[in-house]
Amino acid sequence: MRHLMSPLDLSVDELNTLLDLASDIEKHPDKYAHVCDDKRLATLFYEPSTRTRLSFEAAMMNLGGKVLGFSSADSSSASKGESVADTIRVVSCYADICAMRHPKEGAPLVASMASSIPVINAGDGGHQHPTQTLTDLLTIRSLKGRLDNLTIGLCGDLKFGRTVHSLIEALVRYTNVKFILISPEELRIPSYIREDVLKKNNIEFQEVERLEDALPDLDILYMTRVQKERFFNEEDYVRMKDFYILDKQKMELAKKDMYILHPLPRVNEISTEVDADPRAAYFKQAQYGVYVRMALILTLLEVKLPC
Amino acid sequence: MRHLMSPLDLSVDELNTLLDLASDIEKHPDKYAHVCDDKRLATLFYEPSTRTRLSFEAAMMNLGGKVLGFSSADSSSASKGESVADTIRVVSCYADICAMRHPKEGAPLVASMASSIPVINAGDGGHQHPTQTLTDLLTIRSLKGRLDNLTIGLCGDLKFGRTVHSLIEALVRYTNVKFILISPEELRIPSYIREDVLKKNNIEFQEVERLEDALPDLDILYMTRVQKERFFNEEDYVRMKDFYILDKQKMELAKKDMYILHPLPRVNEISTEVDADPRAAYFKQAQYGVYVRMALILTLLEVKLPC
Amino acid sequence: MRHLMSPLDLSVDELNTLLDLASDIEKHPDKYAHVCDDKRLATLFYEPSTRTRLSFEAAMMNLGGKVLGFSSADSSSASKGESVADTIRVVSCYADICAMRHPKEGAPLVASMASSIPVINAGDGGHQHPTQTLTDLLTIRSLKGRLDNLTIGLCGDLKFGRTVHSLIEALVRYTNVKFILISPEELRIPSYIREDVLKKNNIEFQEVERLEDALPDLDILYMTRVQKERFFNEEDYVRMKDFYILDKQKMELAKKDMYILHPLPRVNEISTEVDADPRAAYFKQAQYGVYVRMALILTLLEVKLPC
Repeated sequence: MRHLMSPLDLSVDELNTLLDLASDIEKHPDKYAHVCDDKRLATLFYEPSTRTRLSFEAAMMNLGGKVLGFSSADSSSASKGESVADTIRVVSCYADICAMRHPKEGAPLVASMASSIPVINAGDGGHQHPTQTLTDLLTIRSLKGRLDNLTIGLCGDLKFGRTVHSLIEALVRYTNVKFILISPEELRIPSYIREDVLKKNNIEFQEVERLEDALPDLDILYMTRVQKERFFNEEDYVRMKDFYILDKQKMELAKKDMYILHPLPRVNEISTEVDADPRAAYFKQAQYGVYVRMALILTLLEVKLPC
Repeated sequence: MRHLMSPLDLSVDELNTLLDLASDIEKHPDKYAHVCDDKRLATLFYEPSTRTRLSFEAAMMNLGGKVLGFSSADSSSASKGESVADTIRVVSCYADICAMRHPKEGAPLVASMASSIPVINAGDGGHQHPTQTLTDLLTIRSLKGRLDNLTIGLCGDLKFGRTVHSLIEALVRYTNVKFILISPEELRIPSYIREDVLKKNNIEFQEVERLEDALPDLDILYMTRVQKERFFNEEDYVRMKDFYILDKQKMELAKKDMYILHPLPRVNEISTEVDADPRAAYFKQAQYGVYVRMALILTLLEVKLPC
Repeated sequence: MRHLMSPLDLSVDELNTLLDLASDIEKHPDKYAHVCDDKRLATLFYEPSTRTRLSFEAAMMNLGGKVLGFSSADSSSASKGESVADTIRVVSCYADICAMRHPKEGAPLVASMASSIPVINAGDGGHQHPTQTLTDLLTIRSLKGRLDNLTIGLCGDLKFGRTVHSLIEALVRYTNVKFILISPEELRIPSYIREDVLKKNNIEFQEVERLEDALPDLDILYMTRVQKERFFNEEDYVRMKDFYILDKQKMELAKKDMYILHPLPRVNEISTEVDADPRAAYFKQAQYGVYVRMALILTLLEVKLPC
């Protein structure tokens, strides 16, 4: 039985197979509409995250399956002092697969070790959020037709943004991917990514502060939100949150076939005037998130697929 | 694609068609039990409202469909600063139709403009609650056999009660409907309803303070709860909340075929001893609420109906 | 129409029939996978209890049915002052059967009297939690092959533990069941159980303080958690909560075919090193909880069963 804790749990081959399946689901949704009839997904969200939870629920429903769970820790047995290991053992009696979100790093891993059903890490603190990375990869591959030979701009909070770290780690496994890392000094990429991931793998990258300098070269621009909850003091947050605002004018600097991604929710870092631009792909990305979660559920449940 | 923001979005003809469909659903529920298989309803409740939410969920389930969503703003992305426009764009990837409750007037309208799926306003602050009005109309038509030639008593909080305002606006479109407006001085109907809706349309109405004076003439008595959350100070609320109590004794003044409606929840404005009276229709009304929401979902989704 | 308020609502014959059905469900789950298609369960949880709620939801889903409801009182109409009697009358329009958890003793009973659908008490304060007792009985019968001729040890909080009281009341109806009641002085079984249930029925029992003294004689050891919410002061709770800890060493005193049950969640009263012991049956018990709830739903809904 397999779990998904990190995007790197999947080899490049396995990942390609998964993305192929997701693309087939996109093209032929009816073919998959009942492959999980009588299967049940448990969504154990110890920390609220509507978007991720609903994406998992939609994915399971699109496969014909059912969903049960909780959307915040208040309504869980955690408040009675139960360990995640005990909770997952019990939930294993109720469901066939589980998506767990937890504020504590490593909690889904602990759960997976005690579980008799596949566990998907749906975000553990500032650590991993693998289905976001799978979403990002499917979006890039679907829009650009490839995951190699790309120049990727990552912009905003590169220090705390776990989706950015995971995406870099996933993309360095493809050939000729270059990164332009766009952030204010205070929110630069952590050194373990710079040294252990980028330099070690001889990946070409630049660090710049101005979005304008990077835009003309990019195939993909990955924008991120500066998240209040990652800062220790309000003052730092306020100073950083408006550092980047992508607007129509800046978009004139970008290539005609560059796509903008964003893990959402956005606050103000992408001006709404950009939404109508055909290069704005962040809402399409939400749709790809459903397809890739459908593919993931099918893969982990080892469902026999229709031909 | 159509949305439902206000009961007046539907012409009288469209409304009649909708109520006909709801009545057919009441008579032949099995015919409709699977017409929405593989359809998904999102219930986005930024403010808790169990009754309305469960009524929508039951409606979708009765049609064979599935439901996902959230029941309070805490567990939504709103707390991360996301706009309803962005939320609905994402939810459009997860569901086929959406019911939105929001404390802010106009929020569902803003959502509908960004949405690629039909949006139903499930209550926006003190503004509109169109499915309650549709429920009220279906209940009256089912019990009395008509929506014209009626004397309707509206009792309680006529100042803040949005269901009362909407019901008046909907009923003035039918011929020979008279109103008796029963309220304490402080909770009289707002002048825009008196002047712009009633007087302007030459609708016969009286304003009285004593329920007893109105009861003998009524075909329908629509009771309402004095809602604490509409008052700025506790003292006013306490003084007003027990102003009307409908009991067995008062019911002796009413016609044998007068029906009592109430949007529920009630607190004490209808004594429980009245529940056994065959004229007490407020729980039947909850059932009509499910039928009319089923009809509405089918209509907005443009589902091909069984003949 | 029948409700379930207390485990004693069922005669011994009815109980045996129910447990037989649950065992058949365990053996042939596919046979029951669609017997409740188009049936809806409402889970009305006025107090959070994830485990119990999810067990009911899983049970209904395993039968093909659908689930709606709420998981805490905040999101219910209770906050608007509605009575449970009114709530259940409305919910009767939305669902075919209801499981209600309420902090107030007797609330589900009040609901059942106003309801037009079967109501299952899913726990009312410190009073009753009948589906836990049914779970315990099914677990014992499944593991030991019988409900008579057993020596049952009950350990921990015997004063406030409602599951313990209910289990004793249910088991005294079978022949030759002996009890060993293991608790600190402060948490001894209440006198109404000692006098009115045990002595009155001439049931053999002992009260001991040391777990070690009881272990060698037991066929079943039922462990319980000392629940903070049952204590008036923190100090008493802290003193009591670590009184018993069942570990590997103590398990050496037990028979080879003694099983450990626990209603869960546990905190530290069973050391995790015991989990791997084949006699540890508390997670299996959670699975039996689903089967017995499936059987209960089928019984109360009077569903025509497949042969």
